[in-house]
Amino acid sequence: MRKHYGFDEYFLDIKLLTSKISGDFDAIIAIARGGLTLGHMLGEYYDIREVYAINTIGYDDTQKRSEIELFNIPKIKDAKNVLIVDDIVDSGETLKLVLEHLSRLYPECSFKSVALFYKPTAVIEPDWYAQTTEEWIDFFWSVDLEK
Amino acid sequence: MRKHYGFDEYFLDIKLLTSKISGDFDAIIAIARGGLTLGHMLGEYYDIREVYAINTIGYDDTQKRSEIELFNIPKIKDAKNVLIVDDIVDSGETLKLVLEHLSRLYPECSFKSVALFYKPTAVIEPDWYAQTTEEWIDFFWSVDLEK
Repeated sequence: MRKHYGFDEYFLDIKLLTSKISGDFDAIIAIARGGLTLGHMLGEYYDIREVYAINTIGYDDTQKRSEIELFNIPKIKDAKNVLIVDDIVDSGETLKLVLEHLSRLYPECSFKSVALFYKPTAVIEPDWYAQTTEEWIDFFWSVDLEK
Repeated sequence: MRKHYGFDEYFLDIKLLTSKISGDFDAIIAIARGGLTLGHMLGEYYDIREVYAINTIGYDDTQKRSEIELFNIPKIKDAKNVLIVDDIVDSGETLKLVLEHLSRLYPECSFKSVALFYKPTAVIEPDWYAQTTEEWIDFFWSVDLEK
């Protein structure tokens, strides 16, 4: 099962998310690539200029379970309340690793997480999400421009 | 004069940009916040997983001209051809500074730049852009979600 996710539905979902998200944040970290568009728009909505990105690479090793490496971990300056943003929490391994790593690096900081989609089989549940899904999502930013 | 810039026009402009952009890139650096959405979508289109962000702060000092500081400058690993992405080249000071700084930091790397809008009064012209403008642009990501 695949679901096409267009801009109109995305826009309604961000409005829904902004009605759910509570708390004040002084920085946003978008998990690249998928979280960049949502991170951008939430940054504009909440008037947070500190919108950062974090990069991940997944390695598939047939001998071991797949591993994820983080890089370009942002310096968050004096932020105390940070919102982590991704498009979908699928296995949840990436979000879990990002939260664990940032919490170790910035123990004085509080991290919350938000995603458009959450798969209930994930190892971690984001604090807020717009929809649960068990489908493959074709995000407009991934498929609509295809060559 | 203000212009509202909605998703449909943006989408056509990205298609136009992908017809103009030439060369192969192995990394994208989006200037946050404005370049994040475009950087995300160009990364998907060109299948470039290395989509990074760079942050800037502008200081207005009445004694001197305004100054811009860069931070969270990405490590671009072994990329050799990098596309710098922003929404609008207005004064051009930010793009100029980003290009100068990255060229010093990574002298072996080639940098090209792309923006949706270019103001002909800017101090630098991006390699590719979709539209010239002399108006204030209300991007959908900035205004459509307003509280």
